[in-house]
Amino acid sequence: MIVKMAHNQSYWASIDADIESHLKKAIPIRPPVSVFEPMHYLVFAAPRTTAPALCVASCELVGGHRDQAMAAASAIHLMHAASYTHEHLPLTDRPMPRPTIPHAFNPNVELLTGDGIMPFGFELLARSDDPAQNNSDRILRAIIEITRAAGSQGMVDGQYLQVQMQGGQLNGAELHDAGWIEHVCKKKEGMINGLLYGVGKNEKGMMELVERLRKLALKELESFNDRKVESISSIVEANLCSV
Amino acid sequence: MIVKMAHNQSYWASIDADIESHLKKAIPIRPPVSVFEPMHYLVFAAPRTTAPALCVASCELVGGHRDQAMAAASAIHLMHAASYTHEHLPLTDRPMPRPTIPHAFNPNVELLTGDGIMPFGFELLARSDDPAQNNSDRILRAIIEITRAAGSQGMVDGQYLQVQMQGGQLNGAELHDAGWIEHVCKKKEGMINGLLYGVGKNEKGMMELVERLRKLALKELESFNDRKVESISSIVEANLCSV
Repeated sequence: MIVKMAHNQSYWASIDADIESHLKKAIPIRPPVSVFEPMHYLVFAAPRTTAPALCVASCELVGGHRDQAMAAASAIHLMHAASYTHEHLPLTDRPMPRPTIPHAFNPNVELLTGDGIMPFGFELLARSDDPAQNNSDRILRAIIEITRAAGSQGMVDGQYLQVQMQGGQLNGAELHDAGWIEHVCKKKEGMINGLLYGVGKNEKGMMELVERLRKLALKELESFNDRKVESISSIVEANLCSV
Repeated sequence: MIVKMAHNQSYWASIDADIESHLKKAIPIRPPVSVFEPMHYLVFAAPRTTAPALCVASCELVGGHRDQAMAAASAIHLMHAASYTHEHLPLTDRPMPRPTIPHAFNPNVELLTGDGIMPFGFELLARSDDPAQNNSDRILRAIIEITRAAGSQGMVDGQYLQVQMQGGQLNGAELHDAGWIEHVCKKKEGMINGLLYGVGKNEKGMMELVERLRKLALKELESFNDRKVESISSIVEANLCSV
């Protein structure tokens, strides 16, 4: 059991390291520093979530290569970083939310930088299109999934929750195998919604929803026969404890 | 001259009416009203700019159909509406910006709604992909243009300015004719940057930049031989007066 957990941990750690490295290349601190320093800072100051790693893991789960999911995983982190930044802005009508990282820049800069980080995530993903691979359709589908989670549907279900839950896992799979999408769509209710990390809020009803979706997610994963499923299951299992 | 202006005005008015109708269909007020009412309100409360209409006009300029550019034009307005909403938020460290429409919702709702409107714009554009038309590449390119204007490049040059200037015109053309893009890219410095509406700020140096780009834009337009160029030229000419 200890060996299994160690294996899982190194698997997730290696994905996280690759995503971080991808993001560092995409957002270097370069002139004008007044723009790229806050952008760089806020992207890496936002706490990591498991959604980007799940995006990569689900791509590998269906036989895809890690590189195929790297832009989508980065975009998911950027959505989260933008939301996180805005969630911690001091507005005149609300108290500062829960204690967090110290504000390194003034609120106006953080507001506008968040507004820039969000479209930059989609730019990164859209630019990952490789005409030689003829994968524009898949990238568009990944964009639709992430925008839906962060936009219209996200606002309905609670912005922060949705960015975490829906943005992650299936994008990775979709990037690899368009044919697999139909299957994925049927499993969607369970699998995508099973990405629970970040749901640490105790709003009434929310935890019940989360628990229901977590069970559904684990049930859906039963239909896969692959060693990587074990890793994903373990992270879904552990999720409610880790926030 | 009066006849020409009247013709131009009805041309722009008809485009604006079509974009408005497209947006109204895309963002109906529906349950949950707590989400879609502020979204609907803020999208239509933001003052119109010429960028979305220029997107449509440039599509028609190269022989495309108005419908091909409607999703991109709507996305451009949504970027503007989100930026405009955030620009008028009362943050603790800044005075309220210039007098504007009254706040119909509290700042927290306006902040989060703006965060939802932005990805919703890209969702709208990504969903306009029609597999039968095999136009995923063009839509991805339009997404790159708009995200670049609103994101990385936008932050460098001043967010608000760039959403207006770069987001508009060429997206329309790109949606119609991928082959035309190379030509467009060469003309980019001049043409795209000539979309000046909304640049009403008097930051030092900004007006000089604007004037330089305006002249460049008019020069680039000389190479086209089409009656619609006249309309576009007239709006570039008039731009500095109208803000």
